[in-house]
Amino acid sequence: MSQSTITIVKNTDKKQKPQSKDIAFGRTFTDHMFVMDYESDKGWHEPRIVPYEPLTLDPAAMIFHYGQTVFEGMKAYRTEDDRVLLFRPDKNLERLNLSSDRLSIPPVDEEKVMEYLVELIRLEQDWVPSFEGTSLYVRPFIIGTEPSLAVAPSKTYKLMVILSPVGPYFKGGIKPVQINVEEQYTRAVKGGTGMAKTAGNYSSAYQAQAKAYKEGLADVLWLDGIEKRYIEEVGSMNIFFKIDGEVVTPALSGSILKGITRMSIIELLQKWGIPVSERRISIEELYEAYEEGKLEEAFGTGTAAVISPVGELNWLGRKMTINDGEIGSLSQKLYDTITGIQRGSVEDAYGWTVEV
Amino acid sequence: MSQSTITIVKNTDKKQKPQSKDIAFGRTFTDHMFVMDYESDKGWHEPRIVPYEPLTLDPAAMIFHYGQTVFEGMKAYRTEDDRVLLFRPDKNLERLNLSSDRLSIPPVDEEKVMEYLVELIRLEQDWVPSFEGTSLYVRPFIIGTEPSLAVAPSKTYKLMVILSPVGPYFKGGIKPVQINVEEQYTRAVKGGTGMAKTAGNYSSAYQAQAKAYKEGLADVLWLDGIEKRYIEEVGSMNIFFKIDGEVVTPALSGSILKGITRMSIIELLQKWGIPVSERRISIEELYEAYEEGKLEEAFGTGTAAVISPVGELNWLGRKMTINDGEIGSLSQKLYDTITGIQRGSVEDAYGWTVEV
Ligand SMILES: Cc1ncc(COP(=O)(O)O)c(C=O)c1O
Ligand SMILES: Cc1ncc(COP(=O)(O)O)c(C=O)c1O
Repeated sequence: MSQSTITIVKNTDKKQKPQSKDIAFGRTFTDHMFVMDYESDKGWHEPRIVPYEPLTLDPAAMIFHYGQTVFEGMKAYRTEDDRVLLFRPDKNLERLNLSSDRLSIPPVDEEKVMEYLVELIRLEQDWVPSFEGTSLYVRPFIIGTEPSLAVAPSKTYKLMVILSPVGPYFKGGIKPVQINVEEQYTRAVKGGTGMAKTAGNYSSAYQAQAKAYKEGLADVLWLDGIEKRYIEEVGSMNIFFKIDGEVVTPALSGSILKGITRMSIIELLQKWGIPVSERRISIEELYEAYEEGKLEEAFGTGTAAVISPVGELNWLGRKMTINDGEIGSLSQKLYDTITGIQRGSVEDAYGWTVEV
Repeated sequence: MSQSTITIVKNTDKKQKPQSKDIAFGRTFTDHMFVMDYESDKGWHEPRIVPYEPLTLDPAAMIFHYGQTVFEGMKAYRTEDDRVLLFRPDKNLERLNLSSDRLSIPPVDEEKVMEYLVELIRLEQDWVPSFEGTSLYVRPFIIGTEPSLAVAPSKTYKLMVILSPVGPYFKGGIKPVQINVEEQYTRAVKGGTGMAKTAGNYSSAYQAQAKAYKEGLADVLWLDGIEKRYIEEVGSMNIFFKIDGEVVTPALSGSILKGITRMSIIELLQKWGIPVSERRISIEELYEAYEEGKLEEAFGTGTAAVISPVGELNWLGRKMTINDGEIGSLSQKLYDTITGIQRGSVEDAYGWTVEV
């Protein structure tokens, strides 16, 4: 059972929109948000757009104790001719339900939530910035709200969508990053929650992140939790390597997030006739390829940066400098193509964009 | 920097206290709660006891997105002569800081928080029920509150303590439980957050719990995430086996919670001269012992039940019935001793109890 008529309560006290492109990530929010509730006997109900405002929850609400929550992240882009585009939002909603399934959260109706999303972004369209590289970040999330300390799924939930204008990921052009191969900490393991976009996967990485920062490195490359050999992904990006002309990315092992940028890149490469394989790849294999001069490019992929070239990998003190620390030509071409499609300057031959 | 003068705002609108011993776990809360805030430049500050009331948080508060949170669970017991005792609360606060360290949360001053705890429970002492088997459950928890979507530790936190009167764990005497050995899902792995009491570890278990319930079993026995062979712990209990006269419990591998009941049982057994070892034990070894008739007793240990005898283990359809499905004599003796100490009817030779 679920109801689809959306109520809108307009905010009369509008905030000032950021005036420059240097907007810190995820700190400014728009005037409205979307909220919908779930109760066992009513299903998802009362979809509404309301002023962005604090949430009131019982201190015993389950989200605070047992972490039953999932989220998504996507972006709305402004085109040169002033349209607003979303990039494959259906895939985000599909993944939201996939994550919810792992966390025992009831699924949402993807088509209806898509309508609600579009309605919210349409209402807030003036918040979609127009500077090169900027966008409106869209954050749907679901939290268990039942006030109970029993270790069991919540009987009530809240789905919320908040919007945040964000600046360009790379200020002053793409900068390849240096990344630490993490040997001590583990992000996820087969049978765990690694394939779900759920809160606990992220804060559990802070210790490893801090270690990397201390060494002047920007992020962490995770290895599998079982053998600590097979490459998984970066903090919040999937990872690709170009080795001897072939593009390789770790297969979806059950502990890796199924990135939408990852999926799109694989599809583009296939279309272009560039060999690409999803398979297990060990850090030893990568190091060997590096020593033989066959590691041509490496890049992370995700909604935030689209493509983030990796200039250097640090594996137990052994440094692999990739493509002289510069962005590779394939990485650049993928970046240009995807950002072009997202901003409407490259033809969308795949039906990936949805106009708001 | 931290301030220790506590402010108390009394609740004038007192709730009705439960009148029977059949109180559902974690659904009723007392009239007051403890709150303290953290800011980078002020440290933990403004400790206060206030009426139990909803929490107001920005929808972007980090707890909702990246799960930076830890908690504890302990109990206050009413003795026959009407005193109120806590059981080893110093160990809970020590573990709180251990968990916080893993989650990049700033530590609290354990001694001060102990004072605050005692002050709160003293104020709420009429809420400590007196029926056999009942107690006042004490739930301290810390949440990251900064409104920011950056994947990084929060700059602000809230520590809260809420109290909930709870009924006896076993209604009508101890009942041995049937437990499923989980082969598909994983709770935790070396390098992860298994040794921390943090939200994400609990909701990630719901799928496995549901599988067990479906088969009419009460809980899940987790195996290690790497080889899926070594026994770790039960849902929210550590696990012990008596094999051929020796008591065995899985060693603290880094993925198991360091239970305070577990610790106390090991100390008691050592005192009593009963052989006890903390070591790796595989499910195959256990099954072999069972087949040879050497598996004499099995029990889970935790604050909730103290001792929860395991009457049957289900491992891939193979059933191990333990001690004819009855509580064993050692389990019973441990239960009587610990609950006796907790309720002041057995002499506390170890200095484990703290009077409120
Ligand atoms: C852990 C993790 N891996 C990979 C990604 C990349 O996924 P996507 O391309 O869908 O943004 C993200 C970010 O969403 C992530 O959080
Ligand atoms: C995962 C887990 N293991 C074990 C325990 C038992 O620990 P304790 O004896 O300190 O209650 C708990 C409960 O606190 C728990 O949550």
